[in-house]
Amino acid sequence: MSASHHLEHAALPGLAEVRTAAARLAARARVTPILRSDALDVLAGARLHFKCEHLQHSGAFKFRGACNAVWSLDETQAARGVVTHSSGNHGQALALAAASRGIPAHVVVPEGAVRAKVAAIEAAGARIYRCAPTQAAREAEAARVADATGATMVHPYTDPRVIAGQGTVALELLQGVPSLDMLLTPVGGGGLAAGCAIAAQALRPDLTLLAAEPAGADDTARSLRAGRRVTDFVPDTVCDGLRATVGAPNFAVLQACGVAVLTVTDAQVLAAMRLLWRELRQVVEPSSATVMAAVLAHPHVFAGREVGVVLTGGNVDLDALPFL
Amino acid sequence: MSASHHLEHAALPGLAEVRTAAARLAARARVTPILRSDALDVLAGARLHFKCEHLQHSGAFKFRGACNAVWSLDETQAARGVVTHSSGNHGQALALAAASRGIPAHVVVPEGAVRAKVAAIEAAGARIYRCAPTQAAREAEAARVADATGATMVHPYTDPRVIAGQGTVALELLQGVPSLDMLLTPVGGGGLAAGCAIAAQALRPDLTLLAAEPAGADDTARSLRAGRRVTDFVPDTVCDGLRATVGAPNFAVLQACGVAVLTVTDAQVLAAMRLLWRELRQVVEPSSATVMAAVLAHPHVFAGREVGVVLTGGNVDLDALPFL
Repeated sequence: MSASHHLEHAALPGLAEVRTAAARLAARARVTPILRSDALDVLAGARLHFKCEHLQHSGAFKFRGACNAVWSLDETQAARGVVTHSSGNHGQALALAAASRGIPAHVVVPEGAVRAKVAAIEAAGARIYRCAPTQAAREAEAARVADATGATMVHPYTDPRVIAGQGTVALELLQGVPSLDMLLTPVGGGGLAAGCAIAAQALRPDLTLLAAEPAGADDTARSLRAGRRVTDFVPDTVCDGLRATVGAPNFAVLQACGVAVLTVTDAQVLAAMRLLWRELRQVVEPSSATVMAAVLAHPHVFAGREVGVVLTGGNVDLDALPFL
Repeated sequence: MSASHHLEHAALPGLAEVRTAAARLAARARVTPILRSDALDVLAGARLHFKCEHLQHSGAFKFRGACNAVWSLDETQAARGVVTHSSGNHGQALALAAASRGIPAHVVVPEGAVRAKVAAIEAAGARIYRCAPTQAAREAEAARVADATGATMVHPYTDPRVIAGQGTVALELLQGVPSLDMLLTPVGGGGLAAGCAIAAQALRPDLTLLAAEPAGADDTARSLRAGRRVTDFVPDTVCDGLRATVGAPNFAVLQACGVAVLTVTDAQVLAAMRLLWRELRQVVEPSSATVMAAVLAHPHVFAGREVGVVLTGGNVDLDALPFL
């Protein structure tokens, strides 16, 4: 059964919206390479296809959703700019997407965000607003800025235009590797996981959908077990891109599509990050390494399978590498 | 005029040998991706196309030449194995190529080689022999091992099968980016630089051929100025893959093809290495960063041009990063 049979959420995108996003991104985003490593395949006991979204513009898949949202606006909306809250990658992506259309971007950044990411948001031309590192503080400050400026809110993961944009990752992976039998993404707020689930389930209903989540921010795993969103938690993980609470529409999609969540410890994430740097020779950030960590921590799930693995971002501070 | 008009060296490969190597490598080596970065293009004032040979099997372009050599041998020769001397990447590549044919590999390693590289040579199944870090000691020990074992010597850069194999990098770059007007490789012994020059000059005689060399091992630059090979120098550079003396046939090719050498300091190399990690998000070793350093150090040479840049290897010791 497809996700649309289970879901009533009016704002959710479907395959058609993902395809429209792909057309909109064709001239603006990169079709990122898919890399392989014999050494990592041996370690995993599986055939891994790494979709390199850390090589996307802005250094993260987030550019897809942000760019789709910015270029979906009509002229009047666009002229008033866009606003969001973000610990880094979505903010940088939205700033860059806004710059590509010549419109203002306002980004609310919680304290504790990676320094290099905040610098990149500013470098892309956005105006920065600081707030406390809680979900409530982020949303309140973003709403205040939206009211004050008339800018359109582009939520980092619940916005349907963002979810549709992130879903284009799955389109490209399935086109590049038609023989995939599993798709594995990290899950934080759930924009990528939900967008990919929507696209993948429509195109390949037989595909096994998996998400990797740090144990220190395992609200998605707990929410799926509880059958309802668990939002009362304080994230504690090195994965700075995955500290957000899974969104309501995102959770609905993950639940409807039967996405299974695998949790990994920060120690497993850091070991996997180092392994990706050494064997795949890719500079990825901790959040990206959750997927490799999940493959190694749950070998029975992946044994002998052909797995599409999404490396989500590569925005790290080389002066403060967490695995050294 | 093509290189073949100038050169009398019987052992030198031509375009035909490079094409034969490409056919031999088709099922065995990777067609590596070509990456771009808007940020690096802005810094360079040029359009840079990075050929990612650090993503080749064994983590370096060296696999191409080694694999071409190993699979050129007849059954009787092959059964007796192969021998070489190498500070790391060629040794690892030859070990891996030999393993792919199920034959023995013997590798002479000079003291001072990068620990991670020596470990990788052993892990690939080769037998290791240590020697003093001089050209004479390397060649003497390799000759001794060849005599003792009957193994075929596969010199890391003067062997014509190796030069032809390395030339396939230029074939792929020119096929991937037909609009190139410059080709830039590092130069150490000159296997890659000569192989690429042979292929590029035959296919695109208008292409500007450049090589980047560390100032602490600038024998190729001095040799071209002197009009003869300068071999009396002690290398002193962080680029562990570029400490060898340019080979006689290699020098002849570079001279005949009009390859211009740009020298860079170790400080420039380390800054460029860090930049490639941060902006291109690729784990490359110091030798690979010479090309980016040359682009930044000689901006007038590259301004407005479309440049094919070869990133040669990614075998670094993450516990001993030279730029931290």
